[in-house]
Amino acid sequence: MTDMTAVPADLNALKDLLAGLDRRMSALEATMESELSAIKEQLPEDKAAIIVFSGDLDKMIAAHIIATGAATMGLETTLFFTFWGLNALKERRSLEGKNLAERMMALMTPTGSKELHPSQMAFMGAGAAMLRQMMKQKDVASLEDLMALAKEMGVRTVACEMSMEVMGVRHEELREGVELGGVASFLAEASKARVSLFI
Amino acid sequence: MTDMTAVPADLNALKDLLAGLDRRMSALEATMESELSAIKEQLPEDKAAIIVFSGDLDKMIAAHIIATGAATMGLETTLFFTFWGLNALKERRSLEGKNLAERMMALMTPTGSKELHPSQMAFMGAGAAMLRQMMKQKDVASLEDLMALAKEMGVRTVACEMSMEVMGVRHEELREGVELGGVASFLAEASKARVSLFI
Amino acid sequence: MTDMTAVPADLNALKDLLAGLDRRMSALEATMESELSAIKEQLPEDKAAIIVFSGDLDKMIAAHIIATGAATMGLETTLFFTFWGLNALKERRSLEGKNLAERMMALMTPTGSKELHPSQMAFMGAGAAMLRQMMKQKDVASLEDLMALAKEMGVRTVACEMSMEVMGVRHEELREGVELGGVASFLAEASKARVSLFI
Repeated sequence: MTDMTAVPADLNALKDLLAGLDRRMSALEATMESELSAIKEQLPEDKAAIIVFSGDLDKMIAAHIIATGAATMGLETTLFFTFWGLNALKERRSLEGKNLAERMMALMTPTGSKELHPSQMAFMGAGAAMLRQMMKQKDVASLEDLMALAKEMGVRTVACEMSMEVMGVRHEELREGVELGGVASFLAEASKARVSLFI
Repeated sequence: MTDMTAVPADLNALKDLLAGLDRRMSALEATMESELSAIKEQLPEDKAAIIVFSGDLDKMIAAHIIATGAATMGLETTLFFTFWGLNALKERRSLEGKNLAERMMALMTPTGSKELHPSQMAFMGAGAAMLRQMMKQKDVASLEDLMALAKEMGVRTVACEMSMEVMGVRHEELREGVELGGVASFLAEASKARVSLFI
Repeated sequence: MTDMTAVPADLNALKDLLAGLDRRMSALEATMESELSAIKEQLPEDKAAIIVFSGDLDKMIAAHIIATGAATMGLETTLFFTFWGLNALKERRSLEGKNLAERMMALMTPTGSKELHPSQMAFMGAGAAMLRQMMKQKDVASLEDLMALAKEMGVRTVACEMSMEVMGVRHEELREGVELGGVASFLAEASKARVSLFI
């Protein structure tokens, strides 16, 4: 015969077990949520961050091919132009209000992408024309086309403020659509990016 | 006295609680599985991706020391040769079927690793011999040994198709075992890699 | 009328369900713990690893601006000096016990950061003075200040042992606080780092 008196005691024990399981479940849910959100913050994001230090025509082309390729892949891409790389962003040369060293720098560095020379085979200046000619023959986009494409694809163009300051490059000498930023703005992107390069 | 009539009601309540817990458990299991698999897809993989843009002997040595070191650490490593870096992959020079600019390029660039010069202290061409001699004296593997080692260790060697096209380098001029690929093939690796470098 | 005989059977079924849920909970807890700890090991860490291959003044300045910027952001930063980059770490020149090639190398490479030249606009040696002057005018920290700041901020300075061996650079020629290490020590950092660069 069944012992009915045992039932309520058993029921209470079961209720306690259920309450315990419920607490464990809530704890697990909370832990999972906080752990996953902490992990997600540390995951690399779909970004690419590229420092363009060099003002060489060939490296500038490489930087823009990589940047437009990264944007095509869906990476939010930033090009951070510093030192000689700034030369590619210039649109006009201004000597007004510059000191002697700044004027010398302005006169001796290229004003814009069209004046850049390759790192190899400069041929007394003929190397740039030769490289551009070879690219054109093979229907490869010119540097200027690549720069326009990058802009169109939403690639961010940041000019290093400190380099501008040191070399005496004024904001109004740069082409439109260039943001100014410091090394911190590069690192903020790079530290989250899947790809970071120094060119 | 125990109230027996309450028992079935309690039992039903307990069954409901249990069913609720069961649903929460299933939901948690499913969430965890989908969240973890999404996170795993975004984690960096044990890969290294290195662009070899430079054709300088010293940088080429550095690239191969890093690549073989990465392979030793268990990283699946890809060397992506572009622009002047392609020179190291050449095994023979062919002028056949090339236009004037391509022939000039072929004649004025090194044909293979043994013709590369260092970026510093070129000494009218004596720098390469000096650097190689100093490495030999210290029992450091030569560039050619490092390239063979890289191949043996499964380091992938990809030649940039667009650079080949622009510079008129033919596939048959390159040594065996070289894959052809575009910037997308570099970025596919780099965006998953733990280490990506531009050399 | 309530069927009391059914109760104990129901109770046992409930107990079984509870025990099942308990097992699923334990399994889920264990899976979550092991999966999360595996994922955490693969997450990038708050580190930056920079190879300083170049001995050019301008690139050396860029490397130290990035390194001190990364340290400011809370990244544990390592500068790995190799090839010409070693020149910046020299504090004295010693020819004792060196063979001919090593002595030539010692005499023809800069001894310390103050002897470095920029990669562009060397102006027969006047370029370094001009660049330093322009930085001073704009109150930008000198390379030596940046190197001291990096040390103070705990940026690790590692000299590539193999490069030292090949170029005949002795440990006693380097400034204090420089660790020696191989490419593996760079890759150990780089493979966990959020940012890795080759300069």
